[in-house]
Amino acid sequence: MNILGVEHIGIAVKSLSDSIPVYERLLGTPCYKIEFVEEEAVTTAFFKVGNTKIELLEATNGEGVIGDFVSGSGEGVHHIAFSVNNASEALLTAKAEGFRPIDRTPRAGAEGMRIGFLNPKKTAGVLVELCSVLET
Amino acid sequence: MNILGVEHIGIAVKSLSDSIPVYERLLGTPCYKIEFVEEEAVTTAFFKVGNTKIELLEATNGEGVIGDFVSGSGEGVHHIAFSVNNASEALLTAKAEGFRPIDRTPRAGAEGMRIGFLNPKKTAGVLVELCSVLET
Repeated sequence: MNILGVEHIGIAVKSLSDSIPVYERLLGTPCYKIEFVEEEAVTTAFFKVGNTKIELLEATNGEGVIGDFVSGSGEGVHHIAFSVNNASEALLTAKAEGFRPIDRTPRAGAEGMRIGFLNPKKTAGVLVELCSVLET
Repeated sequence: MNILGVEHIGIAVKSLSDSIPVYERLLGTPCYKIEFVEEEAVTTAFFKVGNTKIELLEATNGEGVIGDFVSGSGEGVHHIAFSVNNASEALLTAKAEGFRPIDRTPRAGAEGMRIGFLNPKKTAGVLVELCSVLET
């Protein structure tokens, strides 16, 4: 695959109102955006860190994949998002190379991204997100 | 704190010989270094990804913190390493700002880094590494 970089690291938290000030203090930078992503039943909070980002994710009413993750494993790193030129093509390439896409085609993520995930069973336990800004 | 960027993301794996080819295929880049870190009882494998790195970690004979992590939680993201100007000062600042350093002073990590960790209880479940190349 042609991975361009780490677009962000996604961290599941119980409460954004608790964790945003913690990460602002840790990273020494303000949260620059809070965005509700209806499809995923999450509210996200973003921080710029060097050339990448940290994304905190809080489940809406404990629902969805983030709600399940926090209930099961507690807070912590949920996924690594890699930027690619074209998420649609990257999902097809990933499948051809023996990975197991969870999404057949990209869906809408935060920050206007097109995103798709790979099953962690084929990536040493890491939930991998592939994301691109524009689809050509 | 003054975080410069994400130096690397550490991923605990059962077997480097299994996971190195998987991550070479996923990231589209060769592993550029394999390094044994005696103090940590781990062998590490590094990949460049954009402006940051992925570090795979395999425990020596299932021992040490990585052995315990894989036995307890399975493979997956183990830590996020943030680069700082001076790891000694960053550990002191972190403590003063309400975080809980695991290390009072930095120790030797892979790639000639001086590294120290923060207890994940104060960082929403994330094991945070602070690392610097040079100590002034």
